[in-house]
Amino acid sequence: MPSALILIADGTEEIEFVTPYDVFTRAGITVRSAGVNLKNKQFAVCSRNVKILPDAPSLDEKLRAEEFDALILPGGAPGAKAFCDSKAVLQLVRDFREKGKLVGCICAGTTALVKSVEDEGGEGNKRVKVTSHPSVKEKIVGKGWDYSEERVVVDEGVVTSRGPGTAMLFALTIVEQLCGKEKREEITGPMICAETL
Amino acid sequence: MPSALILIADGTEEIEFVTPYDVFTRAGITVRSAGVNLKNKQFAVCSRNVKILPDAPSLDEKLRAEEFDALILPGGAPGAKAFCDSKAVLQLVRDFREKGKLVGCICAGTTALVKSVEDEGGEGNKRVKVTSHPSVKEKIVGKGWDYSEERVVVDEGVVTSRGPGTAMLFALTIVEQLCGKEKREEITGPMICAETL
Ligand SMILES: [Cu+]
Repeated sequence: MPSALILIADGTEEIEFVTPYDVFTRAGITVRSAGVNLKNKQFAVCSRNVKILPDAPSLDEKLRAEEFDALILPGGAPGAKAFCDSKAVLQLVRDFREKGKLVGCICAGTTALVKSVEDEGGEGNKRVKVTSHPSVKEKIVGKGWDYSEERVVVDEGVVTSRGPGTAMLFALTIVEQLCGKEKREEITGPMICAETL
Repeated sequence: MPSALILIADGTEEIEFVTPYDVFTRAGITVRSAGVNLKNKQFAVCSRNVKILPDAPSLDEKLRAEEFDALILPGGAPGAKAFCDSKAVLQLVRDFREKGKLVGCICAGTTALVKSVEDEGGEGNKRVKVTSHPSVKEKIVGKGWDYSEERVVVDEGVVTSRGPGTAMLFALTIVEQLCGKEKREEITGPMICAETL
């Protein structure tokens, strides 16, 4: 059974957090969420005021040592900024990529992926083709990344997407990567997804 | 500024709770959420394990006396059952409809609307055209309601929809009802919604 770690901070976009969490659970993926520098230790106040309790209040050493198959960074500008400002998050992104594990970023979440890359070579520092929310496109292009305006982009284990309206497509694309096309199709029907996401 | 009350119970479908909350907030609607018989007093454990803290831990008298413009019942089978089992919720649904206010139900949430109707006449007890998750269709048709398989149905102030995959359409349809078509269009773009929801 694959497993995924989803990060959450104050200001994380709640649809972009909850949709992968929910859809992964439906697919049988073991999901855990962890808070990043939460003001209130117990819960995150998301970008549109929904309050969510992560499974682990912080990204502690024990959690960072656990072996997950995928790492997910939702967007929301202030939430993504918290990821960018956390050395532990940036290190975690590099570590996942170095080990060939899936990293998924949506909306402004892609800025943390971009920030994680250092000039040191290796798989963890490789620039890939990405997308993001249009509002942070220039920032990403300015750092020399190959940019696409597709609703979801998969490149060398990195899955990126654009906003709350693409969260379902993002989540299902990652399910397909981790569990296969059949599992994706199995869970799509009961959720009554649109023909074209 | 319109206002909306969104209910949440243990087993509520988290995408169906969070999507209206988030989208309404983007539209400038004042949103409050209230727990219904939560096992843990502070938070709801949703259908796929996301833990959410409602703004009000319970549907107390003070909250029931407040004047909201819309009442929203998300789905998730166990969550909808908790709504069906709560006399306060069923009374609230009738009260909103009696006053000509919007009631929105998605997925299994429609079963609580159906259960709220008594044989006493009045606007609050009127059967309207609805949809729901396919899994509870027979239950609703069996009670003599007019049923549609459209992804969203609007009939006499009652907005119903089908599942997590229709939550964005459901939320945007209610924004259009409460704030107009222009507001709906204004918030759709930045969320990067698909052409057809
Ligand atoms: Cu965003």
